[in-house]
Amino acid sequence: MIRAGIVGGTGYTGVELLRLLATHPEVELAAITSRAEAGTRVDSLFPNLRGHYDLVFTPPDASAFAGCDVVFFATPHNVAMQMVPELLDAGIRVIDLSADFRLRDAGVWSEWYGEPHACPELLAEAVYGLPEFNRAAIAGARLLACPGCYPTAVQLGFMPLLAAGVVDTGSLIANAASGVSGAGRQARIENLVSETSDNFKAYGVSGHRHLPEIEQGLSDIAGQPVQLTFVPHLVPMIRGIHATLYARLTGDVDLQALFEAHYADEPFVDVLPAGEFPQTRSVRGANVCRLAVTRPRQRDMVVVTAVEDNLVKGASGQAIQAMNIMFGMDEATGLRGVPLLP
Amino acid sequence: MIRAGIVGGTGYTGVELLRLLATHPEVELAAITSRAEAGTRVDSLFPNLRGHYDLVFTPPDASAFAGCDVVFFATPHNVAMQMVPELLDAGIRVIDLSADFRLRDAGVWSEWYGEPHACPELLAEAVYGLPEFNRAAIAGARLLACPGCYPTAVQLGFMPLLAAGVVDTGSLIANAASGVSGAGRQARIENLVSETSDNFKAYGVSGHRHLPEIEQGLSDIAGQPVQLTFVPHLVPMIRGIHATLYARLTGDVDLQALFEAHYADEPFVDVLPAGEFPQTRSVRGANVCRLAVTRPRQRDMVVVTAVEDNLVKGASGQAIQAMNIMFGMDEATGLRGVPLLP
Amino acid sequence: MIRAGIVGGTGYTGVELLRLLATHPEVELAAITSRAEAGTRVDSLFPNLRGHYDLVFTPPDASAFAGCDVVFFATPHNVAMQMVPELLDAGIRVIDLSADFRLRDAGVWSEWYGEPHACPELLAEAVYGLPEFNRAAIAGARLLACPGCYPTAVQLGFMPLLAAGVVDTGSLIANAASGVSGAGRQARIENLVSETSDNFKAYGVSGHRHLPEIEQGLSDIAGQPVQLTFVPHLVPMIRGIHATLYARLTGDVDLQALFEAHYADEPFVDVLPAGEFPQTRSVRGANVCRLAVTRPRQRDMVVVTAVEDNLVKGASGQAIQAMNIMFGMDEATGLRGVPLLP
Amino acid sequence: MIRAGIVGGTGYTGVELLRLLATHPEVELAAITSRAEAGTRVDSLFPNLRGHYDLVFTPPDASAFAGCDVVFFATPHNVAMQMVPELLDAGIRVIDLSADFRLRDAGVWSEWYGEPHACPELLAEAVYGLPEFNRAAIAGARLLACPGCYPTAVQLGFMPLLAAGVVDTGSLIANAASGVSGAGRQARIENLVSETSDNFKAYGVSGHRHLPEIEQGLSDIAGQPVQLTFVPHLVPMIRGIHATLYARLTGDVDLQALFEAHYADEPFVDVLPAGEFPQTRSVRGANVCRLAVTRPRQRDMVVVTAVEDNLVKGASGQAIQAMNIMFGMDEATGLRGVPLLP
Repeated sequence: MIRAGIVGGTGYTGVELLRLLATHPEVELAAITSRAEAGTRVDSLFPNLRGHYDLVFTPPDASAFAGCDVVFFATPHNVAMQMVPELLDAGIRVIDLSADFRLRDAGVWSEWYGEPHACPELLAEAVYGLPEFNRAAIAGARLLACPGCYPTAVQLGFMPLLAAGVVDTGSLIANAASGVSGAGRQARIENLVSETSDNFKAYGVSGHRHLPEIEQGLSDIAGQPVQLTFVPHLVPMIRGIHATLYARLTGDVDLQALFEAHYADEPFVDVLPAGEFPQTRSVRGANVCRLAVTRPRQRDMVVVTAVEDNLVKGASGQAIQAMNIMFGMDEATGLRGVPLLP
Repeated sequence: MIRAGIVGGTGYTGVELLRLLATHPEVELAAITSRAEAGTRVDSLFPNLRGHYDLVFTPPDASAFAGCDVVFFATPHNVAMQMVPELLDAGIRVIDLSADFRLRDAGVWSEWYGEPHACPELLAEAVYGLPEFNRAAIAGARLLACPGCYPTAVQLGFMPLLAAGVVDTGSLIANAASGVSGAGRQARIENLVSETSDNFKAYGVSGHRHLPEIEQGLSDIAGQPVQLTFVPHLVPMIRGIHATLYARLTGDVDLQALFEAHYADEPFVDVLPAGEFPQTRSVRGANVCRLAVTRPRQRDMVVVTAVEDNLVKGASGQAIQAMNIMFGMDEATGLRGVPLLP
Repeated sequence: MIRAGIVGGTGYTGVELLRLLATHPEVELAAITSRAEAGTRVDSLFPNLRGHYDLVFTPPDASAFAGCDVVFFATPHNVAMQMVPELLDAGIRVIDLSADFRLRDAGVWSEWYGEPHACPELLAEAVYGLPEFNRAAIAGARLLACPGCYPTAVQLGFMPLLAAGVVDTGSLIANAASGVSGAGRQARIENLVSETSDNFKAYGVSGHRHLPEIEQGLSDIAGQPVQLTFVPHLVPMIRGIHATLYARLTGDVDLQALFEAHYADEPFVDVLPAGEFPQTRSVRGANVCRLAVTRPRQRDMVVVTAVEDNLVKGASGQAIQAMNIMFGMDEATGLRGVPLLP
Repeated sequence: MIRAGIVGGTGYTGVELLRLLATHPEVELAAITSRAEAGTRVDSLFPNLRGHYDLVFTPPDASAFAGCDVVFFATPHNVAMQMVPELLDAGIRVIDLSADFRLRDAGVWSEWYGEPHACPELLAEAVYGLPEFNRAAIAGARLLACPGCYPTAVQLGFMPLLAAGVVDTGSLIANAASGVSGAGRQARIENLVSETSDNFKAYGVSGHRHLPEIEQGLSDIAGQPVQLTFVPHLVPMIRGIHATLYARLTGDVDLQALFEAHYADEPFVDVLPAGEFPQTRSVRGANVCRLAVTRPRQRDMVVVTAVEDNLVKGASGQAIQAMNIMFGMDEATGLRGVPLLP
């Protein structure tokens, strides 16, 4: 039995970790911390958990995790990097769902997050937790940086094309759309029902913090620098990310066969049959990314559409998938739930 | 291992049965039938099931269920009553999610459904499948009539009051609201997004088909005739039923204690602490009914609010709960999933 | 041309006043104030107003309204009562959309709002602005208290029954449901899309601030004390209120004829034909309340369903209707827009 | 006073025409036809129109429009082309909101719509009704083809770039998203709330019927053949289209100044200030297209975002705008309504 802890479990990645771990057969949740909610029962804040947990939030303090094998950070950026060194020193492995360890270059991190990085010396050791690209490194990681929600969908969608070298890497476009849970559980006017329901908009067009992460990841996959135009949009729904990816083909290739072969052995990537396209609800609540690839009117532009649940394969589910790998378990342990439809 | 079959699995109670049975450790799905979709793969119609089923819909024919221990009907009314006698004769137990066997009086059934009942001789044998009232009878049932979605919430909400005899049984009011999945997976203009989203309305005010079922059930509970005003409403959401119940108190009673005691041993009824009120999302995807009871301003009117997922505790989950009882398993087998929130 | 001012136009009743006044042929908007947004262009905060206003928010100061004929308060409670005396002294008429002057009893006001009333001496003069009950008094009002959104729908629904004296006044029930804009444009977690979309819940069951206002109004209509059980609910939609009203009939009456006669001359109350029921979308954006009355199964319970747009007939539209009356204009001036459907 | 008729007013473009014409000061609606709803009152089908129309649907027959100056077709394709010749012969001008006269090449029309065109001889005369490109021709049109909803947004977004010749015309991308009303008022399972709410998906990726219309229009604007990749998506909202357009810059240009200059005199195109991005709700119910142009990270890709209400500027409002031009009125007559927000 693995003893796990969670820092900052009051947001949506936190409650989703709790939901998934509640039925994970090999994990026991030892502690969960929150500065704001210390003393509150977990199931009082999140009524869906009634009957599943007796835990109470405790103050965020590394000592809360004594005896833990692994600690998850379900926090905004700039929290994990303050506590991680102490946990690692205590022999506890860390899975960080925030952005603190996703970029290898501390300067780039500072540029996008507007402050210096607190432990740049750990950036080289941190393992980027995308199992479909990095499985071996994940197995041995002490410090795991979970990919962001957009980056997961965009990288999985472009990966077969870049790995095969069949598209122009200088003009990639990712037009993505996310449900509102991606904005987190924070009281902001722009995320009220009255502001966001029955509405659709682009945001972060000039530059979204996920852009450098995605370009870093795509460049790793391609083995050469990649340039991406990334435009995220906000959809009036709770969960789900949909990425529509455009790339210029540089050679002739059987795209369907390429994608099916690339992901043939992946438990959590599902390439749809030719002619079908994914929808976000088909993955609601489950740790899967569904993909379709097509070439409209046989022109030289390839279009990939990819969906995931931003809170599962885009966050907490993927974190547990990585944990399973890190601790030598079957990668799918605790992640076999069926998407909720309708 | 129980071998199960499903008749008519193309609606929402059908896909929900499939979702829940996919992870039920003691059930193997042997056959699923549909006239309209015969030949179609189940996971082609419902993409959330990809990777979980290899089944193909077959034509509706009792022979499809040879060797089955139990058959579920996830059909509109007037289907089960045509096939049930043949299945019972073959020694197969039947769990009917439709309305065919819910009313004991064939005349009342005909009045509300506009046609004669096809096998009135089975009405006396059919067991009404509300475990919280009828657990012992369910265990021995050959033919089980699953309660409707509204009737489940309304009966569970009024049950402690009626069982204790502390309210006027002649003036009960059930003001209920349902998500749109309750209207089924049928192509009707009134259930389009453009007609129903950003909208709220009452319907069936003059008389809804669930009314005689609820009055029959409440009368059974009370041990005397009960009169109910029942007004259902349509909410622009997918899943969930919320019932707001009003009754005139005829005596003084500690309502919170009454409800907690009544449901103390029930695995799937959750009485909230005093001062908290349930919301439908807190049970999304799970087989639970959450309740609150209150007495506004200490006047003589008691208000009960109850929520359930209409497709789970209001339909397919409750059907599986009944199956577990019928086959002597732990009642919660396969039903321990955590509600999806957000 | 009437010169009007608005205090606090940054909420939803404020932007709705702006939308409606933009096309009112007899009103010129002279000033709009906001402490938080002073200096901001109105159309920068509310992009729907681009091309319709050149105004900038100014600090809240009575001097901003010099030369105005009327000032609207579109503020939370406890703002108007601080500024109203000074405006009245300056000969400016006031239309208050907040709760400050709705209750005639300062003690009751204090009990529900948790602080003393700042100018109790004005409560007797303030006119309750429900045109369908109070038209003559409105015409001469210096200080007008606009009814709340729930109180408007509930009073219009019960009014014909109470005026005719055909129901028991001691056991009225108002089961109401509101879109989320009723909660205002405030950053609160509970009104986020991820918290409220695909969800339904009751709130304020123990006692909502609109209860004393409704009971006061219904008692005025009935000419005797009235007791109401009031349970509001939150619907995942932006606009709209739906009230489902229950009353015990004390005599026989042709309900349809009663309602049609009562509202025959009202420009903004629409009694539906027998057998039809109103839906909130049928009044979206328009100053109308639609009603239906029915007697389910000819029992002694009458059910009235009423809808309005909470921001129009429930707030800003009704305020303009009252202004039209106060200034001797055709009551429907500027209020003839057609509801937006779908 | 212009006498107008409507063919097929039972869909969403029909009810929107009715809503807008109800307050148009220069139009009298003489007749409205529908095969399915002949004999039904218009306000019985669309309750938002109660109090605004006394009309009854009549059978679709050209004689119904005797004495009309203009007839609108708010029908699916393949209706207008059957009736238009007879109306034109009777001296009645026609404004067709369907696709029948949008493509100049009858062969291309047949290829995309799967049947021969019924009156190819009129294709050359039909005027494409995009005022911002074709105002002069519209003024003299007998037969007007209203642009589709997607084509309007996409053409208005690309127009300044193509007119200025500053982008590569061979690699344009239009990633667009539409509310569900764009799919029409037809009973189809895929547009049910339970199927579409809380969901996002691409559709028509291999080829959408609006593609040839858009490429024809963009080529007209550019004065040379243009190649477009067009991927539409379905958003869980009722109204609104959002287009995200990508083009490769071929020269240096002040994009903001280019767009502001191009649309300086347009009453219904609004270029947002630099740094702001449009959202669909900002145009809900109004005849306006709002645009933003940006160049992310100063790379060579320009991104234009454009929004419109698909039923107004994308259909019925634009049709009335064209009618105003055709009859020599102020182009904005009857179209000055303010968008509904929230």
